[in-house]
Amino acid sequence: MTENQEHWIKDHWDEPKGRTLCVKIKDHLHSVRTDFQQIDVYETECFGRALVLDGVINVTEFDEFAYHEMIVHVPLHTHPAPRRVLIIGGGDGGSIREALKHPTVEEVHLCEIDREVIEACKQYMPSVAVGFDDKRVSVFCRDGAEFVKERKGYYDVIIVDSSDPWGPATVLFQQAFYQDMAGCLNDTGLIATQSESMFFDRSTIHTLLAFGQEIFAIGRYYYTLVPTYPSGTIGFFLGSKKSDPLQPRLCHIEGLRYYNTAVHRTAFSLPPFVMQPVKS
Amino acid sequence: MTENQEHWIKDHWDEPKGRTLCVKIKDHLHSVRTDFQQIDVYETECFGRALVLDGVINVTEFDEFAYHEMIVHVPLHTHPAPRRVLIIGGGDGGSIREALKHPTVEEVHLCEIDREVIEACKQYMPSVAVGFDDKRVSVFCRDGAEFVKERKGYYDVIIVDSSDPWGPATVLFQQAFYQDMAGCLNDTGLIATQSESMFFDRSTIHTLLAFGQEIFAIGRYYYTLVPTYPSGTIGFFLGSKKSDPLQPRLCHIEGLRYYNTAVHRTAFSLPPFVMQPVKS
Repeated sequence: MTENQEHWIKDHWDEPKGRTLCVKIKDHLHSVRTDFQQIDVYETECFGRALVLDGVINVTEFDEFAYHEMIVHVPLHTHPAPRRVLIIGGGDGGSIREALKHPTVEEVHLCEIDREVIEACKQYMPSVAVGFDDKRVSVFCRDGAEFVKERKGYYDVIIVDSSDPWGPATVLFQQAFYQDMAGCLNDTGLIATQSESMFFDRSTIHTLLAFGQEIFAIGRYYYTLVPTYPSGTIGFFLGSKKSDPLQPRLCHIEGLRYYNTAVHRTAFSLPPFVMQPVKS
Repeated sequence: MTENQEHWIKDHWDEPKGRTLCVKIKDHLHSVRTDFQQIDVYETECFGRALVLDGVINVTEFDEFAYHEMIVHVPLHTHPAPRRVLIIGGGDGGSIREALKHPTVEEVHLCEIDREVIEACKQYMPSVAVGFDDKRVSVFCRDGAEFVKERKGYYDVIIVDSSDPWGPATVLFQQAFYQDMAGCLNDTGLIATQSESMFFDRSTIHTLLAFGQEIFAIGRYYYTLVPTYPSGTIGFFLGSKKSDPLQPRLCHIEGLRYYNTAVHRTAFSLPPFVMQPVKS
């Protein structure tokens, strides 16, 4: 097998495409062009199955636990008793799976704009898309930015499990969306949002923190490690109306592979370069 | 410019080469074949200059601070007053640069097997190889595994800034070498050794911890983030005869970009999967 276009996923980590992660493909399982994006599922040589959206690796069976456990359990252990959870994006189902592990959770609403992502993951990544049939779960195939303008004051936790800030996800990185999310939460609510890499996207992180800290009483950035994402790390903005994420409830969930109480606390400890001004 | 062999560094992160980081090259600055390895220095599109040994990215100007600050300042802030430091490998000079920032340090000995690595970095990566002319520094171009059999009880800190466990560095991952290092330290000495990725090399980490914790009173694994290394993270074994690395001295060094006292403490907080048994 040679390194040609057919047999490798080539995930260009940036423009002008100076760094690219190539992952060898065993099998191309699924391909569909939707109104929103190109969806592919591959069986890879070393990362299990991979969901690829518009050529960008979104989820692999190898390391999705490190992403989904951290985007979900950090906010859900920050809230004292989360009952109503909204997930925006997250059509693969990994965030649903993790949210359902919390015994206080009564409702998980998923707002995913592209129904075909859900269908692809149900069929080809069943270990990720495991929670869709749970009676606590409701799925809305709509635009998340519109959805959060309704249901004022309803949710305890909103998780924005989105792709990167271009294409359909662009609006999810804008201040107006964060203001609408704040309105969609009750008085003790909080959000966690996919917020890019501390190595490659510091401008985006600084912008999110600046307006996020205006909108929420507490706003912090934390990170996890995901080898198949650009730079091997990805972070999250946590915005909270009341609870401090540095004082989590103790974790009583069995079988987690990345999250525990110590990892929760230490994920907010950032190297000093992260907050230093970005040279233009 | 097309994606052909000439214009991209292709760092194969493993055998059977199922995952590869490709980095676009602007210029090939240096190439030499030594008795030990193939040495190349490139100017890259997005990571500054890169030192590549046998096809593997060892150092880039973009992220070397995250590696060198953590392999050096964690052991040097664990020791109460480090005076004599031995660096094995580290021919690029980055670990020397960081060690010299400690005011207690009187001697830095570098034992690098391949003189050509030092020469290449002095010429092409001067921001890394900045400390070689300091009067506290002595360079020995010898086999580190032999060097540590001499000078019994001499050093406060030994840093093994090596490449991966094959080729010339194989011996540096073996129990006998760790025993010889313990003999080369004084009674309060400690070591920090490059110890691979928690995602790709858990077997190696478990083996190092098992014999390292027999040899040293305290043995722990900690990690840093390096986007151009496989999986984006790399870790270190810290073995100490007396001082606990979880209780570092406060950092008074100005201008560090990755290390601070909080990052030191939290770098030892590992996701639970790291220590779980590796399936064979």
